[in-house]
Amino acid sequence: MPYRAPVEEYRFLFDHVVRMDQVSGTDRFAEATPDMTSAILSEAGRMCEEVLYPLQRNGDLHPARLENGVVRTSPGFTDGYRAIADGGWVSISADPEHGGMGLPMAVTTAVNEMMAAACLSLQLNPLMTQGQIEALEHHASDEIKALYLPKLVSGEWSGTMNLTEAQAGSDVGALRSKAEPNGDGTYAVTGQKIYISWGDNDFTGNVCHLVLARLPDGVEGTKGISLFLVPKYIPDTEGNPGVANSLNVVSLEHKLGLHGSPTAVMQFDGATGWLIGHEHDGMRAMFTMMNNARLGVGGQGIGAAEGAYQHALAYALERKQGRGPVEGGTGTIADHADVRRMLTTMKADIFAARSIALACAVAIDMQNATGGDDWAARAAFLTPIAKAFGTETGIEVSNMGIQVHGGMGFIEETGAAQYNRDVRVTAIYEGTNGIQSMDLVARKLMDGGEAANALLDEIEAQAETARHDFPELAEPVWQASETLREAVEWMLEQSDMNQRFAGSVPFLKAFARVLGGHFHLSAAIAEKGSGPHSKLARFYIERLLPEHMGLLAHATAGAEDLYALSVEDLGA
Amino acid sequence: MPYRAPVEEYRFLFDHVVRMDQVSGTDRFAEATPDMTSAILSEAGRMCEEVLYPLQRNGDLHPARLENGVVRTSPGFTDGYRAIADGGWVSISADPEHGGMGLPMAVTTAVNEMMAAACLSLQLNPLMTQGQIEALEHHASDEIKALYLPKLVSGEWSGTMNLTEAQAGSDVGALRSKAEPNGDGTYAVTGQKIYISWGDNDFTGNVCHLVLARLPDGVEGTKGISLFLVPKYIPDTEGNPGVANSLNVVSLEHKLGLHGSPTAVMQFDGATGWLIGHEHDGMRAMFTMMNNARLGVGGQGIGAAEGAYQHALAYALERKQGRGPVEGGTGTIADHADVRRMLTTMKADIFAARSIALACAVAIDMQNATGGDDWAARAAFLTPIAKAFGTETGIEVSNMGIQVHGGMGFIEETGAAQYNRDVRVTAIYEGTNGIQSMDLVARKLMDGGEAANALLDEIEAQAETARHDFPELAEPVWQASETLREAVEWMLEQSDMNQRFAGSVPFLKAFARVLGGHFHLSAAIAEKGSGPHSKLARFYIERLLPEHMGLLAHATAGAEDLYALSVEDLGA
Repeated sequence: MPYRAPVEEYRFLFDHVVRMDQVSGTDRFAEATPDMTSAILSEAGRMCEEVLYPLQRNGDLHPARLENGVVRTSPGFTDGYRAIADGGWVSISADPEHGGMGLPMAVTTAVNEMMAAACLSLQLNPLMTQGQIEALEHHASDEIKALYLPKLVSGEWSGTMNLTEAQAGSDVGALRSKAEPNGDGTYAVTGQKIYISWGDNDFTGNVCHLVLARLPDGVEGTKGISLFLVPKYIPDTEGNPGVANSLNVVSLEHKLGLHGSPTAVMQFDGATGWLIGHEHDGMRAMFTMMNNARLGVGGQGIGAAEGAYQHALAYALERKQGRGPVEGGTGTIADHADVRRMLTTMKADIFAARSIALACAVAIDMQNATGGDDWAARAAFLTPIAKAFGTETGIEVSNMGIQVHGGMGFIEETGAAQYNRDVRVTAIYEGTNGIQSMDLVARKLMDGGEAANALLDEIEAQAETARHDFPELAEPVWQASETLREAVEWMLEQSDMNQRFAGSVPFLKAFARVLGGHFHLSAAIAEKGSGPHSKLARFYIERLLPEHMGLLAHATAGAEDLYALSVEDLGA
Repeated sequence: MPYRAPVEEYRFLFDHVVRMDQVSGTDRFAEATPDMTSAILSEAGRMCEEVLYPLQRNGDLHPARLENGVVRTSPGFTDGYRAIADGGWVSISADPEHGGMGLPMAVTTAVNEMMAAACLSLQLNPLMTQGQIEALEHHASDEIKALYLPKLVSGEWSGTMNLTEAQAGSDVGALRSKAEPNGDGTYAVTGQKIYISWGDNDFTGNVCHLVLARLPDGVEGTKGISLFLVPKYIPDTEGNPGVANSLNVVSLEHKLGLHGSPTAVMQFDGATGWLIGHEHDGMRAMFTMMNNARLGVGGQGIGAAEGAYQHALAYALERKQGRGPVEGGTGTIADHADVRRMLTTMKADIFAARSIALACAVAIDMQNATGGDDWAARAAFLTPIAKAFGTETGIEVSNMGIQVHGGMGFIEETGAAQYNRDVRVTAIYEGTNGIQSMDLVARKLMDGGEAANALLDEIEAQAETARHDFPELAEPVWQASETLREAVEWMLEQSDMNQRFAGSVPFLKAFARVLGGHFHLSAAIAEKGSGPHSKLARFYIERLLPEHMGLLAHATAGAEDLYALSVEDLGA
């Protein structure tokens, strides 16, 4: 059951759903024509199908190991990484000044998703590097940029993010790692960091850690945190890896999934680091890399969903069981209504999540190309939705994929369960989906609902245009948008943030549901109502969109009933 | 983080929600007084807390192994099983004539759930035996009963079900195993069976396999299938295990979870078997054990949910992170609205699923005690709901439990992930949840909706009574019941079963949601609207019950839009 890169589907979405013509219409991205992006996607897709996908089971069956302080990666991962680096796929959106291709984030998002579908645990490595590149592009000195960026962009070196400590997870401000000036412009970084994805490997010449730590005069909380670049090997005068820095991998975690990706406890013992950005301003630089990574993690969820979906579909089309319930069917379980319902749900939700992620990427591209505040606000609003809904979709679709397999789904050899185990962490890392939802209802509504309402206006405008030709599709989308608008209003009326937080997760999901309806409608309009996307749109709008009603009732219930139950009541 | 058996909660449910007084009011169960059942539950609960719970991680870390054809179980499982058997917990509802206690199924359901919460993989062993006992009680000859039942009830021997073959899963009728008369009243059984839970062990004196096979004159399909009892060791003239039968364990599966339970491929090579029930009538006997097992598997889901919930709550109440958002809080993440929302959702859904399972058990008890057709119909209707909703709750609650743990949830050492991995199969075995849902909308509506409408009448009658005192609880339950009634009507109008099947899974879940609202309301009424159950009821009815709207839109969408997408469209 090989993986097939959905290159034509991206093409359709670019052309008809997320309006990539806007992006290629800018000066900055004028070269990203349909022909060019199609060629890029085909090339990346081939690499994912032929090189990365065969590695996926290796990572699970032969996890990365720590041997005498050295990380040994899974069989074949070195070759797989080499293919990614040699193809230039580590960071195709990076600035051409440092060897990047300067391509739109929308293209990166599609390429990342394909790599994630083919081999999620390996793909996490370049995803981390991408975040680091973006942070350095925005916040590093020219000297650091010149030294590090070409090697990171080429994939010769890789990057990590070191945020979390045992007592400081979602509450980053509680971190205790310290940095002391060495007097020569460098800093001595000391502390222990946990959950460091790809904290080390045996296939890049250097591993560059971005570490959050507190300077001696840093105040408590997030405002006293600075960001440091701490390489595994300190570059020599030629910029080549020199002496080993004072840091080491203490241990690797034994995880539910993603075994091919070494998750390290990192110890820094006065390791030499360089300040990135300003003193005490580390959170801002961190958010640059986090924002990039959030969309990237959403894409991981979508990739895993696509992989799980293809896997389940292939199984269903092979498995015969029971009398076919329909005439002229395939004679397989795919003919059975409930199996068909599961497969179609999977496909419809992947379409929704992918459209949201690509729309977010297009907004980032337009922000970068035009500097427009509206685009920036749209990108900021869509980012937590793309992350949380993309990863939820990854978990739910891969869970359904297990169910399609029946008893075989529970047997590890089929690989169905691995998709579900691997993708599970994406709802947790780079800010849990709960944190994403809090971001959405608090920070992302600080504009008085402007970004939210702009999206709803767009949804309703399209629905109104389509109302005449496709009333059964357009009307429910319009209605859902109105119901969602009321929920946005409700959120805005709550000055006590906890009132909003009490329903933030269902609110985010409802917003994604409605956006999904909108994009499905776009696809149906593009097909003039007849074609596979139109049929999928009908399915989604009739069956999945109505979920928003229950979700919004939940979203606007407020905090009172929640705290009415004391922790004693919960334990009773 | 020890497991605490929720004995008081069962007491509350027995007394106020599922009306156990009806059961103890019958002659048959007159001894099952509140004092007696409380004593039983306390005793079982203590065993689960002290003996079984410490074994749970053992099963996961040290899976059952096959060594030279012999199954070696996980460390401590022999002692754990001994405690179950010695305590009489294998089958407390079995007929006293054969050593059972003749207790109501409602008590068995609670005891099973506690054992499942404490150590799911071991609990599956006696659960299989229970199903076998019930099948033999109903269908075996007196001779077989006298020989086997005392040993099965005491736990000296264990039982398995052998249904599935590689080409015959949900489609049992496709099985190829054969049975040929030996001329002495026994049969030679030949074939290979897969997914045989606890197909062997090293702690019972015999393993008794109930095997579905086809006699030489058996027609194709389900009508040509007979049931045979095939023991691992053929009993000698004293009824003790004698010579080894011609059967063996070919291999054990490598599974996502439930590692402590050996899942075997069983080979029968002319093994000696005894016919149970009539020739070609094996499906009827099989349904006896399946029905029992379905409720039992639903209870496994609820037990896993309870275990995962307690685990997550304990973690949340230890973990400090961020500034407390509420005054006078615990200073832990349990104060945060979204964590509180997850914990409360888990608890509210466990209450709903548990109430449904116990109500189903009470209906079985009343059917057994009174012979009433209404009770039988109610039990039959509730069984697939108890199975599917109980196991879905197990999966969703344990998934939420991972999320409550944040990054720690993805680390295997915490044990949060194990609950989710272990319970995953419960949505698949004993008939997938898709099969349960098809059973509900087809066979269980063959009475023209009588059983369904009787439940809805009961729901609405209670809601009408409560409308005056608790309008904000009673009104939504009444409304939801009416919406559900329309969906029942819609189902009944579809003569083409595939129209029903196209929405059967969301229909079942919606029915469970409404039943959950009903039982939460019962609890609130019993507390006169003030108390922990009332607060939980408010939460459920306000936030989770509204899900039925989206589910019922999905449930009644019909098959047309589903099959509009061809398999080519799905692959596109």
